[in-house]
Amino acid sequence: MTTSRTEAFSDGVIAIAVTLLVLDIKVPEPGAHGGLGRALADQWPNYAAYVVSFVTIGIIWINHHHTLLRVRRVDQGLLVINLLLLLTIGVLPFTTSLMAAYLREDEGQHLAAAVYSGSFLVLGCVFFALQNYVLSTRRRLHDERIDPALRRSILRRNATGLIPYALAVVAAPLSAYASLAICGAVALYYALPGEGSPSSSRASQ
Amino acid sequence: MTTSRTEAFSDGVIAIAVTLLVLDIKVPEPGAHGGLGRALADQWPNYAAYVVSFVTIGIIWINHHHTLLRVRRVDQGLLVINLLLLLTIGVLPFTTSLMAAYLREDEGQHLAAAVYSGSFLVLGCVFFALQNYVLSTRRRLHDERIDPALRRSILRRNATGLIPYALAVVAAPLSAYASLAICGAVALYYALPGEGSPSSSRASQ
Amino acid sequence: MTTSRTEAFSDGVIAIAVTLLVLDIKVPEPGAHGGLGRALADQWPNYAAYVVSFVTIGIIWINHHHTLLRVRRVDQGLLVINLLLLLTIGVLPFTTSLMAAYLREDEGQHLAAAVYSGSFLVLGCVFFALQNYVLSTRRRLHDERIDPALRRSILRRNATGLIPYALAVVAAPLSAYASLAICGAVALYYALPGEGSPSSSRASQ
Amino acid sequence: MTTSRTEAFSDGVIAIAVTLLVLDIKVPEPGAHGGLGRALADQWPNYAAYVVSFVTIGIIWINHHHTLLRVRRVDQGLLVINLLLLLTIGVLPFTTSLMAAYLREDEGQHLAAAVYSGSFLVLGCVFFALQNYVLSTRRRLHDERIDPALRRSILRRNATGLIPYALAVVAAPLSAYASLAICGAVALYYALPGEGSPSSSRASQ
Repeated sequence: MTTSRTEAFSDGVIAIAVTLLVLDIKVPEPGAHGGLGRALADQWPNYAAYVVSFVTIGIIWINHHHTLLRVRRVDQGLLVINLLLLLTIGVLPFTTSLMAAYLREDEGQHLAAAVYSGSFLVLGCVFFALQNYVLSTRRRLHDERIDPALRRSILRRNATGLIPYALAVVAAPLSAYASLAICGAVALYYALPGEGSPSSSRASQ
Repeated sequence: MTTSRTEAFSDGVIAIAVTLLVLDIKVPEPGAHGGLGRALADQWPNYAAYVVSFVTIGIIWINHHHTLLRVRRVDQGLLVINLLLLLTIGVLPFTTSLMAAYLREDEGQHLAAAVYSGSFLVLGCVFFALQNYVLSTRRRLHDERIDPALRRSILRRNATGLIPYALAVVAAPLSAYASLAICGAVALYYALPGEGSPSSSRASQ
Repeated sequence: MTTSRTEAFSDGVIAIAVTLLVLDIKVPEPGAHGGLGRALADQWPNYAAYVVSFVTIGIIWINHHHTLLRVRRVDQGLLVINLLLLLTIGVLPFTTSLMAAYLREDEGQHLAAAVYSGSFLVLGCVFFALQNYVLSTRRRLHDERIDPALRRSILRRNATGLIPYALAVVAAPLSAYASLAICGAVALYYALPGEGSPSSSRASQ
Repeated sequence: MTTSRTEAFSDGVIAIAVTLLVLDIKVPEPGAHGGLGRALADQWPNYAAYVVSFVTIGIIWINHHHTLLRVRRVDQGLLVINLLLLLTIGVLPFTTSLMAAYLREDEGQHLAAAVYSGSFLVLGCVFFALQNYVLSTRRRLHDERIDPALRRSILRRNATGLIPYALAVVAAPLSAYASLAICGAVALYYALPGEGSPSSSRASQ
């Protein structure tokens, strides 16, 4: 059993989740107070949340791509962890929408930010579990061995990537804006080429 | 005529249906009584229905994958049964939404649960028909024969998988919660590795 | 330039259009007069329109599959006609929704039925144009010749398939129900195996 | 790392964005003043914006197809620029909806047209960046060299394609209708076969 349909199904779910994000950017009602310009400007949290979520899901997709690249066979364990990953990605349009709706509300602002950054943290953890599974069962899934030291190094590196999301969750009760900014900084860091690049061979395994 | 486009189209419909489920988790209106925390907690039926439906559709996808894996050719009969399967999967975002909206209502609770578990039962029946068709026409579609005893064993096993859903439909007039719990237990049972695993070779044929 | 990405893109659009149809089946508001059972029963036009549209789009997909099956190369003309076909398919969730909303209204019933069956007629015409293009440029696209008599026979057969939709448009001002019934009968006719089967070799070219 | 999953993911996002456009064509409320016919006629801006956006996204897809056709490997830079392209395409259902909602409003009409044509201009610029990247790194990505004069000629040609969108943005404060008409004319120009055809070999590289 090869990875092609697993990739196709994952690509489908990720592509849909990322495209559904736009449904959260609403067209202002004609005739609103202050005119269209102000109404559009007022919903900047929606744009910010859209971009951060879009880029984050895009980076997860790139990493997912790299992780499955050399997998030759999928087994039940991989299918189930992958399904859990897709379930988590599928929730992001909701948490993004929540963040956008509450970022400027006095009540609920902090909880929304915690749910938002928390959903990225959970996503990161599930992705870590997927990578760990792929690395642990490498001989079975890849027809190749992996040096245990390299494996530990890869996993340590990926676990490190979870720290900023944990910080964003911790920051949420203090400032929803700071929490969003941390999530945005992580997305920017991974999108820019360089050390943090998910396509560098060590990170991608 | 090979199975690749049939798989691609099915993957597309299943991926979309599973991702549309999230549209049913609504962002609470800012300023609601009791605050955001309570509003989020109050919609736990939506989360439960989301998870149960997502995992169930995911398992159907895995089984669909296995069923078509060794099919070499598709014919008109297979295309039509597959289309019927997709039509049933396409309805699940509606039945999931119905379950979530009515689980805690006094009126309609039992009917919603019956419709919800009933949609899984119908899905199971259509999937059974698909498997039966693939097994019955194996020589034509697979370029290989199948031992009649093995075929009966596979079909009996798959028919057995319909019993819990029938029970969930029967339980709906008594308790909507019990009905949902049965559907959730089935999803969990198939997702966990072991005897019930849909990827075990006998079940997957 | 091969057909694979054209097929993938078409499969994507068709799969999404067919799955979006379910958004038109609404969950009744809790507490509506007469209870959930009656509310669900009252929206039978939505179910009927869902099934007719789903099966029709599914059959178009099967035919699209057959038409592109032996095409070896795509050119600009094919891409543009295919895009027009997808544009027409993309409109069907709207026309389906219109039909469902107005089938039982005194005012608008006939117009909605005309728009609904008319969208199928336009779809059929665009599909005919696609087939005609593929057949006319067969030598260029297929690396094979086609007998002119066979080509005329195939096109005549496919043009004949447009007649019922023209009838459904004509019937709309008389009875919206009759118009919907004709569309449903066409879908059923093509879905059932036999003479009308789109997978029969002559029809599929 | 090959382009296949990048193409699949891009196809998915583009197909979904193009299909979501239809959600903007609303079914008029039964019982509206003037009847269904008038209500349908009144929302012609929605139809116009739907067609213009659908065709434009379709042409971008065709061009995207051509651009990646001979790319043998994807690198991090290509993935990130492609992600940015998809992010821009993902926004189009919103800008299309905005255009449709405000085209006939006295207030907001011009701003909506500027945002709409501006989103096409940004899309064109990001696509230009993608093409430039692919051409500049051709030796690495394609296993072939490109004549610098040909590369300049291709890029100049593609940059020229941005001029009408810049004009449409400039025209927006004067007339929203003119701005939409320019966008529509561009879509028509590229869809029709001939000089402007995106599949002509020079334009597509």
